[in-house]
Amino acid sequence: MNTEPCNKRTLMDYCPDIKVMDCTLRDGGLVNNFSFTDEFVRDLYEANIKAGVDYMEFGYKASKELFDPKSFGRWKFCDEKDIRAIVGENKSPLKISIMADVGRCDYKKDIPAKKDSVVDMVRVATYIHQIPTAIEMIEHLKKKGYEVTVNVMAVSKVNTDDLDAGLALLSRSSVDTIYLVDSFGSFYPEQITKLSQKYVETAEAAGKNVGIHAHNNQQLAFANTIEACRMGVSLLDATVSGMGRGAGNCYMESLLSFLKNPKYDEIAIIRFVEKHMLKLKAEGVVWGYDIPYLVTGILNSHPSSAIKFIKEQRTDYCNFMQELLDLE
Amino acid sequence: MNTEPCNKRTLMDYCPDIKVMDCTLRDGGLVNNFSFTDEFVRDLYEANIKAGVDYMEFGYKASKELFDPKSFGRWKFCDEKDIRAIVGENKSPLKISIMADVGRCDYKKDIPAKKDSVVDMVRVATYIHQIPTAIEMIEHLKKKGYEVTVNVMAVSKVNTDDLDAGLALLSRSSVDTIYLVDSFGSFYPEQITKLSQKYVETAEAAGKNVGIHAHNNQQLAFANTIEACRMGVSLLDATVSGMGRGAGNCYMESLLSFLKNPKYDEIAIIRFVEKHMLKLKAEGVVWGYDIPYLVTGILNSHPSSAIKFIKEQRTDYCNFMQELLDLE
Repeated sequence: MNTEPCNKRTLMDYCPDIKVMDCTLRDGGLVNNFSFTDEFVRDLYEANIKAGVDYMEFGYKASKELFDPKSFGRWKFCDEKDIRAIVGENKSPLKISIMADVGRCDYKKDIPAKKDSVVDMVRVATYIHQIPTAIEMIEHLKKKGYEVTVNVMAVSKVNTDDLDAGLALLSRSSVDTIYLVDSFGSFYPEQITKLSQKYVETAEAAGKNVGIHAHNNQQLAFANTIEACRMGVSLLDATVSGMGRGAGNCYMESLLSFLKNPKYDEIAIIRFVEKHMLKLKAEGVVWGYDIPYLVTGILNSHPSSAIKFIKEQRTDYCNFMQELLDLE
Repeated sequence: MNTEPCNKRTLMDYCPDIKVMDCTLRDGGLVNNFSFTDEFVRDLYEANIKAGVDYMEFGYKASKELFDPKSFGRWKFCDEKDIRAIVGENKSPLKISIMADVGRCDYKKDIPAKKDSVVDMVRVATYIHQIPTAIEMIEHLKKKGYEVTVNVMAVSKVNTDDLDAGLALLSRSSVDTIYLVDSFGSFYPEQITKLSQKYVETAEAAGKNVGIHAHNNQQLAFANTIEACRMGVSLLDATVSGMGRGAGNCYMESLLSFLKNPKYDEIAIIRFVEKHMLKLKAEGVVWGYDIPYLVTGILNSHPSSAIKFIKEQRTDYCNFMQELLDLE
């Protein structure tokens, strides 16, 4: 198989450097407090293998000093034994990922050396001002033997000079992949075009890859993901039925049906939707596009206010918009 | 005000040649059999005026010989007196449009001369093989004094040679605007880029405009609409909350918040959503993205099978997919 990266991508191509990351447990866990049943997690793991998904993120590696394990489902913490209870030795091509937030994890203590873990990849989530701390984590985790990504969050709030400086720092680190993250779902595709170009140029010069993590506030998560892909971004995040915080993410069903690599099979995911996602929705777990998320997306604002508004079952959207504008 | 068309569009520009068309009653009418209350229609008319929308389509001009008026709401037929009952003499900047399907209307008899009508625009909906008949309609309606568009449906099923021939014929007609229509919601943005380019080049050479009408089967209606806009397409269709057949259309709320022309105000539309659309949904009127529409979108197939599947409250998506593949 040709494993050279191909940067000029057309609809009929398939590019072996494109990889798909399932974040359903991690971003979706933010919706239901990580309280997935074991059957859900096991079936998702099996579905991802069948569907040809490349990475599955099991959740966060959160600090148990900062967060009380009694208040969250287990995928907030991703104990090694809990992952192994699902995947055993993970004798599959599906790689396993966890996310570690800068300042919210005890990575030195809680993340063992790669040789003692079934986890393959650690994703370091950072805000722009935390990049020096992120780099310390990256170097530590690389030394432990992991594949490491850095996910620079909320870049729609970051000015260009700071972003350029941050990317330059990261490109000199040992990180494998730098992620373009649209935390607030506020980017339009033509902004993604330009940002992808910037990230890909910087990362490629340093021998690194770029990933994309999109949110669906303006119903653009899928469009932005495939636009980034067209521009050479190669690690693509998605979740089943878009399950994720607020408006959710890029739909895995859509992404796999778009990609031309014959190893991807959206039917395994659609089967999982039939069995599990309809039930979740019927139980009242709420995520996905809605006007309050459109509003926070337009205003480039954190979705937390919209999540609260929806939880309170309010529908006075125009008042909500004015309240948000007052906070700007 | 500068009224020169500007073709190189960036996010910060606003281009006076861009016009927005509300098709809520027409495409949304396909969902509820055109049974909107008078209050709904009147409030929508007022909301569109406040929001700066340029055109409002009231519905179809269907033949009463072919369709029994007792079986449909009045906006299937758009009698002059019914439109006037809402808009009077329409002393507003909002222009009024109706749609006439080739072969399904008695346009010679049922559409009066423009001087006797409050309607400003007639949109002729045609399949590729009906273009000669469409042109006869176009010439007739232009002589009667209307602004006329032609909406070539289902182009995702049309081969390039036929499309080129069809566009060439239309560019020699008197039509004002040629519409790019993604009837099955099957196009990706990069296909819209190329098609928009083709349509705009052909139309501009003949002194005509291009419009876009997108469907949301793959959650790409908004993305495809703004991509077409970027490429110089100037008449943009949307519906409130995306209400339209099957997966629905581009959301007016999203489109107006994207456009930079200060005359557009999405708040008037969001207020309308608060008052009317939530009620419609609560009453069980169903439209919008769902897996069966994703499937027909992927397979470039008419949404009717997905509409039936959803009406039957089936959720065996994988079986549905196999049934559809059997029909290919």
